[in-house]
Amino acid sequence: MLVVMKAQATPEEIQAVCAHIEQLGYRAHPLPGAQRTAIGITGNQAEADRGNLESLPGVAEVIRVSKAYKLASRDVKEEDTVIRFAGSDAAIGGRDLAVVAGPCSIESREQAFAIAEEVAAAGAQFFRGGAYKPRTSPYAFQGLGLDALKIMAEIREKYGLRIVTEALDTETLDLVAEWADVIQIGARNMQNYSLLKKAGRLRKPVLVKRGLSATLEEFLMAAEYVLSEGNYEVILCERGVRTFADHARNTLDLSIVPAIKRVSHLPILIDPSHGTGRRDSVLPMARAAVAAGADGLMVEVHNHPEAALSDGPQSILPSQFHEMMGEIGQIAPVVLRRLPRGIRVEAAAG
Amino acid sequence: MLVVMKAQATPEEIQAVCAHIEQLGYRAHPLPGAQRTAIGITGNQAEADRGNLESLPGVAEVIRVSKAYKLASRDVKEEDTVIRFAGSDAAIGGRDLAVVAGPCSIESREQAFAIAEEVAAAGAQFFRGGAYKPRTSPYAFQGLGLDALKIMAEIREKYGLRIVTEALDTETLDLVAEWADVIQIGARNMQNYSLLKKAGRLRKPVLVKRGLSATLEEFLMAAEYVLSEGNYEVILCERGVRTFADHARNTLDLSIVPAIKRVSHLPILIDPSHGTGRRDSVLPMARAAVAAGADGLMVEVHNHPEAALSDGPQSILPSQFHEMMGEIGQIAPVVLRRLPRGIRVEAAAG
Amino acid sequence: MLVVMKAQATPEEIQAVCAHIEQLGYRAHPLPGAQRTAIGITGNQAEADRGNLESLPGVAEVIRVSKAYKLASRDVKEEDTVIRFAGSDAAIGGRDLAVVAGPCSIESREQAFAIAEEVAAAGAQFFRGGAYKPRTSPYAFQGLGLDALKIMAEIREKYGLRIVTEALDTETLDLVAEWADVIQIGARNMQNYSLLKKAGRLRKPVLVKRGLSATLEEFLMAAEYVLSEGNYEVILCERGVRTFADHARNTLDLSIVPAIKRVSHLPILIDPSHGTGRRDSVLPMARAAVAAGADGLMVEVHNHPEAALSDGPQSILPSQFHEMMGEIGQIAPVVLRRLPRGIRVEAAAG
Amino acid sequence: MLVVMKAQATPEEIQAVCAHIEQLGYRAHPLPGAQRTAIGITGNQAEADRGNLESLPGVAEVIRVSKAYKLASRDVKEEDTVIRFAGSDAAIGGRDLAVVAGPCSIESREQAFAIAEEVAAAGAQFFRGGAYKPRTSPYAFQGLGLDALKIMAEIREKYGLRIVTEALDTETLDLVAEWADVIQIGARNMQNYSLLKKAGRLRKPVLVKRGLSATLEEFLMAAEYVLSEGNYEVILCERGVRTFADHARNTLDLSIVPAIKRVSHLPILIDPSHGTGRRDSVLPMARAAVAAGADGLMVEVHNHPEAALSDGPQSILPSQFHEMMGEIGQIAPVVLRRLPRGIRVEAAAG
Repeated sequence: MLVVMKAQATPEEIQAVCAHIEQLGYRAHPLPGAQRTAIGITGNQAEADRGNLESLPGVAEVIRVSKAYKLASRDVKEEDTVIRFAGSDAAIGGRDLAVVAGPCSIESREQAFAIAEEVAAAGAQFFRGGAYKPRTSPYAFQGLGLDALKIMAEIREKYGLRIVTEALDTETLDLVAEWADVIQIGARNMQNYSLLKKAGRLRKPVLVKRGLSATLEEFLMAAEYVLSEGNYEVILCERGVRTFADHARNTLDLSIVPAIKRVSHLPILIDPSHGTGRRDSVLPMARAAVAAGADGLMVEVHNHPEAALSDGPQSILPSQFHEMMGEIGQIAPVVLRRLPRGIRVEAAAG
Repeated sequence: MLVVMKAQATPEEIQAVCAHIEQLGYRAHPLPGAQRTAIGITGNQAEADRGNLESLPGVAEVIRVSKAYKLASRDVKEEDTVIRFAGSDAAIGGRDLAVVAGPCSIESREQAFAIAEEVAAAGAQFFRGGAYKPRTSPYAFQGLGLDALKIMAEIREKYGLRIVTEALDTETLDLVAEWADVIQIGARNMQNYSLLKKAGRLRKPVLVKRGLSATLEEFLMAAEYVLSEGNYEVILCERGVRTFADHARNTLDLSIVPAIKRVSHLPILIDPSHGTGRRDSVLPMARAAVAAGADGLMVEVHNHPEAALSDGPQSILPSQFHEMMGEIGQIAPVVLRRLPRGIRVEAAAG
Repeated sequence: MLVVMKAQATPEEIQAVCAHIEQLGYRAHPLPGAQRTAIGITGNQAEADRGNLESLPGVAEVIRVSKAYKLASRDVKEEDTVIRFAGSDAAIGGRDLAVVAGPCSIESREQAFAIAEEVAAAGAQFFRGGAYKPRTSPYAFQGLGLDALKIMAEIREKYGLRIVTEALDTETLDLVAEWADVIQIGARNMQNYSLLKKAGRLRKPVLVKRGLSATLEEFLMAAEYVLSEGNYEVILCERGVRTFADHARNTLDLSIVPAIKRVSHLPILIDPSHGTGRRDSVLPMARAAVAAGADGLMVEVHNHPEAALSDGPQSILPSQFHEMMGEIGQIAPVVLRRLPRGIRVEAAAG
Repeated sequence: MLVVMKAQATPEEIQAVCAHIEQLGYRAHPLPGAQRTAIGITGNQAEADRGNLESLPGVAEVIRVSKAYKLASRDVKEEDTVIRFAGSDAAIGGRDLAVVAGPCSIESREQAFAIAEEVAAAGAQFFRGGAYKPRTSPYAFQGLGLDALKIMAEIREKYGLRIVTEALDTETLDLVAEWADVIQIGARNMQNYSLLKKAGRLRKPVLVKRGLSATLEEFLMAAEYVLSEGNYEVILCERGVRTFADHARNTLDLSIVPAIKRVSHLPILIDPSHGTGRRDSVLPMARAAVAAGADGLMVEVHNHPEAALSDGPQSILPSQFHEMMGEIGQIAPVVLRRLPRGIRVEAAAG
């Protein structure tokens, strides 16, 4: 922590701030500058200290230096986290690109199976589908619930796809954990700490989506909540943030990929479907995500998007998903990655 | 809803879109323009329709016209909602400015009582204090829980202040509802729909804080979740939004006050403490909020902010709270409001 | 400046950074912490130093401590700047609230005089009107140019109002300076450094509007460009910033008022017309601006807003302007201000 | 244009709005809905009409349908614009990826030549270098001016690179146009309409950088200013926008690439240097930009970034530039592009 004094601060004020710091059990290091004096603090730990200092006479600013995340940081664990799934070649975080695909919501057994068959054929290792849906309107379709979880369990059985689905609240978390392979925490719940803590007590991978206005630090602190309870299998997912820009539903912030890789060992996926909200932007941004170094993709696919109960405009068609897999399969080697199940040449050729 | 066709759209494409609309059970009204044709739709209800249309050939854009909120809208209820508290002169939404004041967190019985005595003396009708705290870091102080609720119940008894406190999750909601007069839903939980729905089934006023990047519509939709379950006592609270600006912790968006008043009958309070994050900005923004037409204020007050366990830098001192009450009491008549318990002249004079 | 080293930085890397700093002619102060070492730098001046350091091995972050603005800072001049106008009681920055009012564009002599008569009668000291208009579309009305400047000179003569008008570019700056009392630099030109520098060589007050995404520091640096050329009569003006919020044309950031007052001696006005873009939000935000401590207002007034060539929807009617003056006249004493020409009671009563 | 009436609007109010529209010379098409009536307008052209309507009794909202840009739109010109340079294989907008590389500022003949040699060897077709620099601080290095232009002319001669450099103001525009092949308009000048118009009267390609908070429409309107003066050789350039996110200097908005391609025929480049502000993010985002379908890149390269007079932290080393060219050369075929001068295998191998 660094305390910056005002230009007019008196020697007495500087002395008083130093004394206050020492009294808190830390060491104060005054650094007289050309215009102002700054005071370095060593030995401090928590953010709570900050308030004390900003209110002292003569203090202009207090600058925090240490990061709040610990277990999510590369300072604690240098090598990348790779999450593996017993009895499957699926993995998230290593050399293989992880591709999660499926409809926004599970609408029926027929719809889910038709889409699952397509995405499995194109090389996806994970199937996504909403059972419990967070909807802006209380009057909108809220998901099939347990029925949807059971349909996805059948899909895992039949197609060998691992299941990713959202747990909306602490009430349904155990149920979701029982049926799914990866528990998704949605963007709107990124700071639902009760849910994060409870997910941290499970022993199943947790995928945390970035909140609509979350900073990198807040995003990692959400992961830290899960990690701090002893669950070390956390996957991050960027899905667009909210800005003034109006040409897309959200602004997909791909630069968070190298930024996360710099400071954290956790894998990060990109969701270009929510990230853009427009079908015709999904493939360009999926390619861009892989090129930027993401560990994989999470994509909405629907066989009849014009009839989808949610997110139709941003769902791509199965044929587009095949095309996407062909394209990212070609980009993967540039970033030292691969699609584990290969590129289906016949599909990519179309 | 309005469908805007591309300039190059063919008559057949326009015809196909009209046919699609009619097939959905609505009426299509083609409006040929100088450059493009637009197609008005009447008889539609839900947002789910939109996806259908954007994917049809020749369609450039689909524009939604109706608002998603119903019960929160002045279209449904023209007169302002006023929330009253039996056995008390406290009210939110009418002529009287509602002032909610107290510490960020209840830290001890002594601290809470000392602050309550001050804010009651200065004319506040409501006491706020965190029992369960949403903290960015899992390692930070999380609140005293039930003990804090009991302390606040004693404060209600002793000072006649009504109690406002946050329910963090569905697990503790019933407990909070049992002890508090107003249940606060925090900004991070503004789209925690399970929590909102459960709060909607209670028969206690619910104060919903605006999410950090919530639009006016999303803010009202959060209220709509509570209203749609039959709880009509909803209070909105603006507490700053997240922008690029770095001179304050958040950007307090006071223009939402006249905007809400235009479209909704619900009362709106302003929280200048979280809205700015800086003690020296709280009074200016509190005055501004009242001048803008807000129904009241929610302010953090601490007797020893330099030792506060949370939000010390943005908590004002009791003496500043007295000063604030004096100032807003003078501004109130300009906006046809008043401070119900008067201005304590001796205090304001200090 | 403060250099934060990575947790894994070696003693050699720390030593190398210190050596590099000393080589640049500064002093390095290593501060070993529990997790990381930080290195304080004293004696440095310019921002250019930063790049050097971030690229050295082991460096995690470089934090700038000194502010870039000098002449705009209270560190250099503690007392508030007050700008006076010879032969007039008009002033900006002192006890008197400065009110600038008039149409967005000068459209005709009749229109301008009709509006000027109204705003003068209601107590404004300054008249605003666009002669050269910055328009998003090249096909939109671009202003009457010199004719408009001449009309405003007549208005000064007849009503004793001082004239504020925008200089769009260096070509027309001299012309504007010749006819106007205050030269406005628009939000889109806030970082048009050629224009700012040329305005700095004039000896007329310059009003700088905040850019749509300008931080406080960038805003003051724009002022610094004018000040650094020797023109010390700079007025700041907040007119709303761009955010995700869609209920107003811009988000009016009133918290910049106390923030500017903290660090700078320059006066700051608020423009609630551009700040909201909606007529029905102008009065609430004008009141809020005065209550927040602004030095005055800049407001668009039009006698026939439904026929205005620009900004009609945000222009208030003369009757609303009278009402506004009555309201802010009542709020002024709370912030130790006054309307110098008094409140026209008969007008305010209407 | 579409006028949405309030739910409570009376038939008389609806009739009055229709009459007003007809009086303006347009046609009104009332569309009674379940809750509200909307009125479609045909035959209107300009944005100025809007104000008229929003102020009429009973009107809730006015929605603009037509886009303001005309010449920049695919409605006017369906095929992509390709800009060619006589006597060179360099082109912007066609199958060949355009790569513009060089230092932020020309600091000396030696520095410029050393960098030019490297970027030419790696396959760039364009050289960038600042002669006139827009700096936030008046005290920072402002560029070498004419000397820099002359150095770049020599570089064109020696290495066959086309020159891209910024014109800061109308004063220096002619000089820049005389020496450069592409005139850059910087982000801070994106709404400097005098400069855009004067650039529109030249017959040299103009590269317009997106403003820090420009919407897609404003970005295209800046291009429209140039096009409307008869200069049809306009290149767009995304360089990051301003958001709350603090892990990068700006937020690079790659989703604008497919969005621009949808509505406009103009080519678009991406600047990952300003877009991220961090050397270690430049290569990931350069790859992502090409994968997203951009027409090329604009990248800052410096042989001694630790000693650069500006933008050192975001400049990549020549060796990194070689690596980048190797990587994007491999991605190019996926998006049906190529690097015209091939990939220097030996360089890429390094």
